[in-house]
Amino acid sequence: MPSSPIRKLVPYAEEAKKRGVHVIHLNIGQPDIKTPKAALDAVKNASIEVLAYSRTEGSEAYRGKIASYYAKHQVHVTAKDIIVTTGGSEALAFTMGSILDEGDEVIIPEPFYANYNGFAAANGVKVIPILSSITNNFALPDIADFEQKISARTKAILICNPGNPTGYLYNEQEIKQLVDLVKKYDLFLVADEVYREFAYDGKQHHSILAQAGMDNHAIIVDSVSKRYSMCGARIGCIVSKNPLVIETAMKFAQARLSPPTLAQIAGEAALDTPQHYFDDVIAEYVSRRDLLLAELSKIDNIKIARPSGAFYCVVELPVANSDDFAQWLLEEFQINGDTVMVAPAAGFYATEGQGLNQIRIAYVLEKEQLKKAVHILDKGLKQYLNR
Amino acid sequence: MPSSPIRKLVPYAEEAKKRGVHVIHLNIGQPDIKTPKAALDAVKNASIEVLAYSRTEGSEAYRGKIASYYAKHQVHVTAKDIIVTTGGSEALAFTMGSILDEGDEVIIPEPFYANYNGFAAANGVKVIPILSSITNNFALPDIADFEQKISARTKAILICNPGNPTGYLYNEQEIKQLVDLVKKYDLFLVADEVYREFAYDGKQHHSILAQAGMDNHAIIVDSVSKRYSMCGARIGCIVSKNPLVIETAMKFAQARLSPPTLAQIAGEAALDTPQHYFDDVIAEYVSRRDLLLAELSKIDNIKIARPSGAFYCVVELPVANSDDFAQWLLEEFQINGDTVMVAPAAGFYATEGQGLNQIRIAYVLEKEQLKKAVHILDKGLKQYLNR
Ligand SMILES: Cc1ncc(COP(=O)(O)O)c(C=O)c1O
Ligand SMILES: Cc1ncc(COP(=O)(O)O)c(C=O)c1O
Repeated sequence: MPSSPIRKLVPYAEEAKKRGVHVIHLNIGQPDIKTPKAALDAVKNASIEVLAYSRTEGSEAYRGKIASYYAKHQVHVTAKDIIVTTGGSEALAFTMGSILDEGDEVIIPEPFYANYNGFAAANGVKVIPILSSITNNFALPDIADFEQKISARTKAILICNPGNPTGYLYNEQEIKQLVDLVKKYDLFLVADEVYREFAYDGKQHHSILAQAGMDNHAIIVDSVSKRYSMCGARIGCIVSKNPLVIETAMKFAQARLSPPTLAQIAGEAALDTPQHYFDDVIAEYVSRRDLLLAELSKIDNIKIARPSGAFYCVVELPVANSDDFAQWLLEEFQINGDTVMVAPAAGFYATEGQGLNQIRIAYVLEKEQLKKAVHILDKGLKQYLNR
Repeated sequence: MPSSPIRKLVPYAEEAKKRGVHVIHLNIGQPDIKTPKAALDAVKNASIEVLAYSRTEGSEAYRGKIASYYAKHQVHVTAKDIIVTTGGSEALAFTMGSILDEGDEVIIPEPFYANYNGFAAANGVKVIPILSSITNNFALPDIADFEQKISARTKAILICNPGNPTGYLYNEQEIKQLVDLVKKYDLFLVADEVYREFAYDGKQHHSILAQAGMDNHAIIVDSVSKRYSMCGARIGCIVSKNPLVIETAMKFAQARLSPPTLAQIAGEAALDTPQHYFDDVIAEYVSRRDLLLAELSKIDNIKIARPSGAFYCVVELPVANSDDFAQWLLEEFQINGDTVMVAPAAGFYATEGQGLNQIRIAYVLEKEQLKKAVHILDKGLKQYLNR
């Protein structure tokens, strides 16, 4: 089992804190945005005497409401196409377990959400990366690159849209290219759409299940974690119109009995969250992103991938090894008692040696903090390069 | 992925309900006992603004309190020996993933909790069953039977104590035999102790981690589901003093980020449940068991395994195939609009052909219902045999 990109740095952050240094976390994807009150209140107001298992696939009422949610996003499914899972994480684990056998291959554009490695490893599945580039903000690599990597063991292509860590939002043209490819080679297309709502600059999110003829091919991995800033609920889902996929995933689901009951109550209530909540949240993320980009642009000799979705930004630094730099920031650097923790990007790449000079910044901090953090990063970088 | 013993019957139960027949469920392990109010109130009273991820291994405070709970059960561990999981189910999945490689073998006395098959299959692990017998209430099979099955691929022995579906509570002598065996062959001993509190007739539960010299060998799988009648919380844990086991399980835990936050609040508060709650619950289960045994003893030509723990009872019937009988009860039989659903026991055996004439009854119903159910079972059996 591979471990997460920041895991190695955690002890250094703890040491820094022990020395009284305040660590500003640019490394984590835990939003600071408030959870919709209606979701939390639903749990408070539920009258429960026996906190019982729910149905393995999630409650019928909740799945029905999830289906209505998708209808608003041009995805037409019914409760039977949905399995409620314990977070998007479990949706990923079940999906990989269901469509890939030991030794099978899944193609994933890199950099990608590092835990895909963990779920692949747990299933004995081989990840075949396709390099995307910071120079075009991590747009979809040439479709010929995908085609070239398809082997007899390839069963699926997995994308994250919008991307963690890239912040890239695929346009419809890119989605259509993938759609054509999976149809041509009869593969699954798995889309991790947990950041669906976070699409900026007037751009549209294009779900793979909104595309025609994808019923047998498309599997959506979803989650309430980021959408409603309720990561601790641990609720997500698998969506597919392919009955065999649902049937197989149900076997995994049955073995673990049921998703969390209290959190499903919150998840169901969250579906009534009014649009202005998202409008406000998106406005907030956009203004943070804009501030981040403005501040970063003052730093010399770096490359920035402009994010149009999610809340991450990959930056290329003039360093040989961002792991070392990130550790140095925690061990050796501070400005008036503050330092920053960033996520070295190599852990988001499957190809050895890629991303060594990149970091991922999560803009889930208030603007003042974000500005301060970039200032520290700038000064730190200068001192690091001159040390 | 194998499926659960009752899954096949579910559509017949649904059909029966559609025909207006009331199905009394003797087949499920969902207790009807009330969840401790303090646990539910803790969730209601929590002031949460952002429902955030918890630590991957569970909150420090909660793990510390779990350690104190174990100390009262002669198991001396600290927070670092504990990983909070999403139910005992996830604890089982992580344990199998951590200690067994593809192709490795785990020895399990049969009949056993059917989902062990699912977690083994998901990890490509081979289950080696050792037959236990209804004639001695499913006591531990001869230790020589275990020894004989140990191969170069054997990595662990897994027991469930007290047992689902057997209701058997291992005595200290039996536990010590297993302890000696795993030490001799340097194996892991995994004990699923989720029913620990449910020990009857003045008998003691003996945890594998209360035995000397087991630090490197013992792994406890635990859960709040049955203990506090809060199955829907989805909280359990792995306990081991073997740091490599904890370290490896942590990699699986990191990939899924964190266990449910709301449920951990409930789980932590549940640890303060006063002893009289358990005394009452145990008194209730004992009186249900006694009633069940008394009623069952009136039925001709059956064998009953007397349970001394948990809330299950295996019964051997004078039928060739209890699957067929269970289906017949749902499809063809009723008394005044009532019928019963039982769990055919073959699904609890890994050996083909075993348990075909057995059923499992869960006594998680009120006594009146239980009595009625056994009456229906008795009459149904007679009619089935004479049909
Ligand atoms: C791209 C992506 N997918 C899935 C997840 C899993 O999240 P969860 O299990 O909380 O739904 C995350 C969490 O950060 C993520 O970034
Ligand atoms: C023996 C045994 N182990 C583990 C479990 C898993 O329960 P949970 O995941 O709810 O903790 C069960 C549930 O019925 C069980 O009977």
